[in-house]
Amino acid sequence: MSLYLDTIASPTLILDPAICLRNLRRMKGKADGLGLRLVPHFKTPQSKVVAGWARNMGVNEITVSSVKMARYLSGLGFDCIHIAFPANIREIDQLNELGRSENISLQVVNTEVAEFLAANLKNKTGFFIEIDAGYGRTGVRDDDFNTLDALLEISARSDMLNFRGFYIHPGHTYYSDVSVVYEQTLSAMSRLKAKYRTRYPALLTRVGDTPGCSMMEHFGDVDEIGPGNFIFYDLMQVGIGSCTRADIAICLATPVVDISHDRKRVLIHGGGVHLSKDFMITDQGKLFGEAVLLNDTGWSIPDKVWPVVSISQEHGVIQADDELLSRIKVGGLIGILPVHSCMTADCMKQYLTPGVEWIDHAEG
Amino acid sequence: MSLYLDTIASPTLILDPAICLRNLRRMKGKADGLGLRLVPHFKTPQSKVVAGWARNMGVNEITVSSVKMARYLSGLGFDCIHIAFPANIREIDQLNELGRSENISLQVVNTEVAEFLAANLKNKTGFFIEIDAGYGRTGVRDDDFNTLDALLEISARSDMLNFRGFYIHPGHTYYSDVSVVYEQTLSAMSRLKAKYRTRYPALLTRVGDTPGCSMMEHFGDVDEIGPGNFIFYDLMQVGIGSCTRADIAICLATPVVDISHDRKRVLIHGGGVHLSKDFMITDQGKLFGEAVLLNDTGWSIPDKVWPVVSISQEHGVIQADDELLSRIKVGGLIGILPVHSCMTADCMKQYLTPGVEWIDHAEG
Repeated sequence: MSLYLDTIASPTLILDPAICLRNLRRMKGKADGLGLRLVPHFKTPQSKVVAGWARNMGVNEITVSSVKMARYLSGLGFDCIHIAFPANIREIDQLNELGRSENISLQVVNTEVAEFLAANLKNKTGFFIEIDAGYGRTGVRDDDFNTLDALLEISARSDMLNFRGFYIHPGHTYYSDVSVVYEQTLSAMSRLKAKYRTRYPALLTRVGDTPGCSMMEHFGDVDEIGPGNFIFYDLMQVGIGSCTRADIAICLATPVVDISHDRKRVLIHGGGVHLSKDFMITDQGKLFGEAVLLNDTGWSIPDKVWPVVSISQEHGVIQADDELLSRIKVGGLIGILPVHSCMTADCMKQYLTPGVEWIDHAEG
Repeated sequence: MSLYLDTIASPTLILDPAICLRNLRRMKGKADGLGLRLVPHFKTPQSKVVAGWARNMGVNEITVSSVKMARYLSGLGFDCIHIAFPANIREIDQLNELGRSENISLQVVNTEVAEFLAANLKNKTGFFIEIDAGYGRTGVRDDDFNTLDALLEISARSDMLNFRGFYIHPGHTYYSDVSVVYEQTLSAMSRLKAKYRTRYPALLTRVGDTPGCSMMEHFGDVDEIGPGNFIFYDLMQVGIGSCTRADIAICLATPVVDISHDRKRVLIHGGGVHLSKDFMITDQGKLFGEAVLLNDTGWSIPDKVWPVVSISQEHGVIQADDELLSRIKVGGLIGILPVHSCMTADCMKQYLTPGVEWIDHAEG
């Protein structure tokens, strides 16, 4: 056993920097090639170290999903941190405090909030209007010109609230045909741009979801992309077709605590508090992760699937086969590729690299 | 708006001490009345303050689910902390270190681990043999006398590893008929006790799950109960019949960031990183929590259900009705009763009481 693996006694989230850097470089290269600006969403890694890697590649704006996360990633030298979540006016003091030293941008979906921000922001702050991508989570409908015009009017009257453009998150690419969703999304953004660009020549349109940004090759006249999950990817993205298993940059190292040879089941210390309870439905039932063999430099991807078939708070159960059983033992470690890397990273709150460096996470 | 609610800007987990104390007192009273010893499982609250409440009621042993949690709850004056998870031999150094100052007890399910512990433990340590409750997660089958006898033999040869008894967690009470499960569970424990009590007159049997301990009135010849979720309860337990909504001791306060009056939907800052992604299936589909109105002293239980119908990493969507819409506004707060309080507490990592005191959590 390697010295590196010897240091791991308890469930530990491993980050392979080489894979993560490759994912970042590939998306940056794609954006550059298409003339798009990449504004990666850091809700997935939530890490200053990883944000530094992106900045070194020329990323100059990042996205986050809360004021708390913006505060954590402030001071790293980005031109702007965009908080891609409908602004929460209860956090106005935190926003004003953060806005003194960091260029923050917000997302707005209703006039009550816009009025409040116009009256209470103490620093000049950009904002995107979030457009409802059609699956009803959040945003202004793209044909609701009453609201759109009212928001623009509030902004026009304000010295503090500056309109940047339209943001859309077509989150239904996770369970629909990506190209069909994108056709609708891109044409909605294009219509909005055509309608408002005379009045706002600098307006930007931004679209951000990992499946679309990974799989599409044309983005209409969109200016910016803001995917996040691609930084680590995960099994859900493999299922959608955004990436392969070899692109997944994190893996939970879990101690093997019991093996049932007759049922071919492996019990690991690794459950919902480590992986989250996100799952996928496969032909074999629920899937909470897939087992891989760990090695000195990371892990190897098997040519078959060893699924985590059930989890509870701390327990996970792997359905194994003879090959896997021959390669592990009680007291050893086994890696688990996560179903949803954003949630797993948020549960684990720090990362260990095979070079035995600890990498930070906002919640750590 | 009260001063207490004014202090809340971001998603915050509220703990009502009165409800929590009542849950603890009721279970302690029930155990005392039935001549059972209550060894509550602290994987749910993971809190020193709450552990102190239990100790003040006469609880002298608690259960946890990891060495990390045992370390966190050490030094509080309990006679013993039982780690109800199959022992992970990679953590032997942490176990030995903790065992110097705290009386720790372990759970063992296989001979490899028992041999290792016998050879490597540096402090006298009790252990329970975990019995497979029949749903295949973990444990020794109650008719696998080869393994049971081998474990007892290893213990008999060891100065450090002392057999305490048999532990069973009938976790399938969460989705089966509780009384049927309990009949099987209690008779399995009774048979084991009858078989081994001559050799081990002091052996204990312990059974621990919240549905059974809440709903059953007879526990056969079992000596100890070890439920955990009952300390807070949650909507899943309401669904099973273990408690009512009024017994749920924690509630996530979430800022309202948008309201769609035509779709009667309320968007809150409260998602998977706050509530976890655990859900229940109801006639109306997936349920991720239920909305309640917050007040100065906690929250009130409505006479109808306002379900959280979808969540993503930071967003939650409540399906409202006219009554709810008339009582909330953008920028206000709304409470969410959790589906699974153990997971929600683990996500939030601290608690606020309506008396504006912060209560600790192991992960905080």
